[in-house]
Amino acid sequence: MKLQTHKAHFSNPLYLESGRILEPYDLVYETYGELNDEKSNAILVTHALSGSHHAAGRYEGDRKPGWWDGLIGDGKAIDTQRFFVICVNVIGSCYGSTGPMSKMYPSEKRYRLRFPVITVKDMVKAQRILLDRLGIDRLHAIVGGSMGGMQALRFAVEYPSLARHTIALAATHATRPWAIAFNKVVQEAIVKDPKFKNGEYDPKDFAQEGFVGLAVGRMAGHISYLSPESMDRKFDRAYVETDGLFELFGKFQVERYLEYNGYGFSKWFDPLSYLYITKAINIFDISRGYDSLSEALRRIRTDLHLIAFKRDLLFMPEEMKEIETVMKAQGQGHLVRYYEVDSDYGHDAFLVELDKFSHYVAEVLDR
Amino acid sequence: MKLQTHKAHFSNPLYLESGRILEPYDLVYETYGELNDEKSNAILVTHALSGSHHAAGRYEGDRKPGWWDGLIGDGKAIDTQRFFVICVNVIGSCYGSTGPMSKMYPSEKRYRLRFPVITVKDMVKAQRILLDRLGIDRLHAIVGGSMGGMQALRFAVEYPSLARHTIALAATHATRPWAIAFNKVVQEAIVKDPKFKNGEYDPKDFAQEGFVGLAVGRMAGHISYLSPESMDRKFDRAYVETDGLFELFGKFQVERYLEYNGYGFSKWFDPLSYLYITKAINIFDISRGYDSLSEALRRIRTDLHLIAFKRDLLFMPEEMKEIETVMKAQGQGHLVRYYEVDSDYGHDAFLVELDKFSHYVAEVLDR
Repeated sequence: MKLQTHKAHFSNPLYLESGRILEPYDLVYETYGELNDEKSNAILVTHALSGSHHAAGRYEGDRKPGWWDGLIGDGKAIDTQRFFVICVNVIGSCYGSTGPMSKMYPSEKRYRLRFPVITVKDMVKAQRILLDRLGIDRLHAIVGGSMGGMQALRFAVEYPSLARHTIALAATHATRPWAIAFNKVVQEAIVKDPKFKNGEYDPKDFAQEGFVGLAVGRMAGHISYLSPESMDRKFDRAYVETDGLFELFGKFQVERYLEYNGYGFSKWFDPLSYLYITKAINIFDISRGYDSLSEALRRIRTDLHLIAFKRDLLFMPEEMKEIETVMKAQGQGHLVRYYEVDSDYGHDAFLVELDKFSHYVAEVLDR
Repeated sequence: MKLQTHKAHFSNPLYLESGRILEPYDLVYETYGELNDEKSNAILVTHALSGSHHAAGRYEGDRKPGWWDGLIGDGKAIDTQRFFVICVNVIGSCYGSTGPMSKMYPSEKRYRLRFPVITVKDMVKAQRILLDRLGIDRLHAIVGGSMGGMQALRFAVEYPSLARHTIALAATHATRPWAIAFNKVVQEAIVKDPKFKNGEYDPKDFAQEGFVGLAVGRMAGHISYLSPESMDRKFDRAYVETDGLFELFGKFQVERYLEYNGYGFSKWFDPLSYLYITKAINIFDISRGYDSLSEALRRIRTDLHLIAFKRDLLFMPEEMKEIETVMKAQGQGHLVRYYEVDSDYGHDAFLVELDKFSHYVAEVLDR
């Protein structure tokens, strides 16, 4: 598989849903495989909250491959021998695309809290402009999970003729207060941490010890990515030190897991990006800009596959199912298919339990 | 209803499950109604994590009545015209019973982090000693929800002939990693907040503005007390200011609710008590001290009622159901009854949806 990283610079303004503009801006992205001469074999993969454009493969020295490496590669469900796969870091993120820690051209100052609120619609628009520059006006498919699934849905509504197939996994048509509440914990923890300094922190300060606000909040996030059942299987009631039961700070395995992942994450993910991206997730509502959910969905022309996971406790199966129900009720039954994966892993199943749905993805892309 | 507050002082040591002792210690408690001459009409009500001995009634000037006022009172399910009701503040709490902010007699210093880890078994033991002092050796019933339900179960196992009826609501036989994870968020948020000062804080500092660590953590707690469905009903996707959608710190109603309750709570609940009580919940396992869950439950002689709530996402119905399954399998089917309340409110249903189970409680107590 040929893995390449690219950076595209755009000097034209990006008109945002909020009415503000971003100008100029950069997008970094990865590509795998080769674009054919007809430019008809491109697949866009969209990433989740803490994801990046590095969806598959390894760079020299990498301990871990990209986040969907089990799905994307030569001979895999998203077969890079047949398809040219693109994954773009969303605006607002912290992996090279323009985000809150970018400099406010022409100034040398970073945006920080002056960065405009961005939405999933804005993320999608920027990617559409990039595809344009690459001369790609038709995609074989768009595939993404969680916030990546929100992007896939937004693409389907805003650019109806762009993709032949759209696969949205573990997403929703509008973020419910339940998910907003989890994001609130991390936003509050970040903003109220004295080291956040109203956004004027030095990122180097977090590289060694991490950043408590983001770490604590991320722990709450991890709860929503798992499920009671997967936690039972992973940790049960095991204790880190057997004699620590009556020590106030003695730890269960699950507590160590949360610490390890929370603090680890806070060493490399930017807190401002976390604020902006969770905001984009919170205000995601596919019907915004239309009179109703029905009206928004009526625009869809792509073949839409909704893959939900039974014990996803962040974006629940019924939220995806509703999209199918509405589309069927208005005569779009031929376009939509709902597929529920029998998994009790929780929301992260879309990253972890690939063997339960990769055959489905492969089958769709084969058409 | 005659409402009285009492304080009992114990100068004998309380031998704790950890091997440590508490000496001396105080218990504050409330009573409602009158103890009859035979001392046969007493009901013990046990409280949850943030609860107190103030379970019902109002003191002069109170804006709100006690936490289970809808259930306890003259003519109510727990009828104070017939029963003498007692509710004891658990040790470790911050409403007057000995806890981490109590003074370490004979010193004037407070325990703070020197306070011993206490368990649900210890809370129950202290209450048993109090009943002894009151000359009550038989209870008509013990009733409690959440951590109160854990206490009810622990009473049933440790003091099999104490209560005629035992009603445990919204509890579990052993805390699962899922619930421990929610507690981890608040513990970590408290301990890592610089104002916690390793437990050496001045409580007066939190009286005005609250305490961020506890507030943020409590927000995570609130998620586990509700459910996606009850949040939809309470808040939907309503926004506090309609024009705040594209403001980074614009708020959804659910976010305002979490802030209001999180910060409010942190003004009056002691962070050290919160650490110690969540620790007690985390290490709750009714089988500890016995070879197995079966062996622990085999000791039960009381008539045991397990009331679970369908969409309780903290302590799930199946955890209560397992107690019934194990007891039935070992010939204790005549003692146990499992009752599942059809509610989608979430864990807090035991405090809120009284109309769905108070008839059941009344019926049990009538026997």
